[in-house]
Amino acid sequence: MDSPKYFEDFHPGQKFLLGEYELTKEKILAFARAFDPQAHHLDEDAASRTLLEGLSASGWQVGAIAMRLCAEHLLNHTHAAGGTGVEECRWLKPARPGDILRLEVEILAVSPHPRRPVGFVKMAWDLFNQREKVAHIVTTPIIARRDAAA
Amino acid sequence: MDSPKYFEDFHPGQKFLLGEYELTKEKILAFARAFDPQAHHLDEDAASRTLLEGLSASGWQVGAIAMRLCAEHLLNHTHAAGGTGVEECRWLKPARPGDILRLEVEILAVSPHPRRPVGFVKMAWDLFNQREKVAHIVTTPIIARRDAAA
Repeated sequence: MDSPKYFEDFHPGQKFLLGEYELTKEKILAFARAFDPQAHHLDEDAASRTLLEGLSASGWQVGAIAMRLCAEHLLNHTHAAGGTGVEECRWLKPARPGDILRLEVEILAVSPHPRRPVGFVKMAWDLFNQREKVAHIVTTPIIARRDAAA
Repeated sequence: MDSPKYFEDFHPGQKFLLGEYELTKEKILAFARAFDPQAHHLDEDAASRTLLEGLSASGWQVGAIAMRLCAEHLLNHTHAAGGTGVEECRWLKPARPGDILRLEVEILAVSPHPRRPVGFVKMAWDLFNQREKVAHIVTTPIIARRDAAA
């Protein structure tokens, strides 16, 4: 493994392929009970009668899975220092039991913090299952600057 | 409890106060291990040396807690049918162990689906702890129309 990346190591257009995460019925139900106790995430029979046509993960679980893949395979190999939010999060298709999810990350923009020794790395996260894109997220982690560490 | 609300029962400017959720160190660590295994969410000592100045919840957990409050106290008392995404999510302050979180929901806009018997209810979620606003989220649940059910 290379030494951890700094803000200066990121450039618009860079892409990273990060995977994989296996989604199961048990994980969907556990997350729904804790955070999104709606019938279409909690109950297979009720879910089959909804617009979603079957059990699907909470959209917040889908985002959290993308976060997991990005943290484990990218941010934990940088000097990451948190984030300020999500600019956009689109749930394009339901995430189902049995889905194997992988994440494509593209760096969109980089900008140094005006006063602190960090920078903002705006990135697109596209989450795919075996067949299609499930979610599109834009978010901006904060990463320490090499010039400030030097 | 009133009968479940339909799309037509929502109007821009309506506000709902929904609470409460107690955040604990154990909940922060469990979520971080599952979805956001970065040091500032996983390790109190490491967290104290970061910009966040102490252990704080993953931003995705903060969003999921807002989802929980909205599902339990509002959407589960409607004919809700999922959602398409999050227009905006801002993490304004760290969410810490011991925080008691409550959610203020304001309806921003309503629009019927052009073809299906549902409508989009765009809402702002403002999540507060005992002292200040922790997060601001804009999201658009889908809710069944009464006119289509009649």
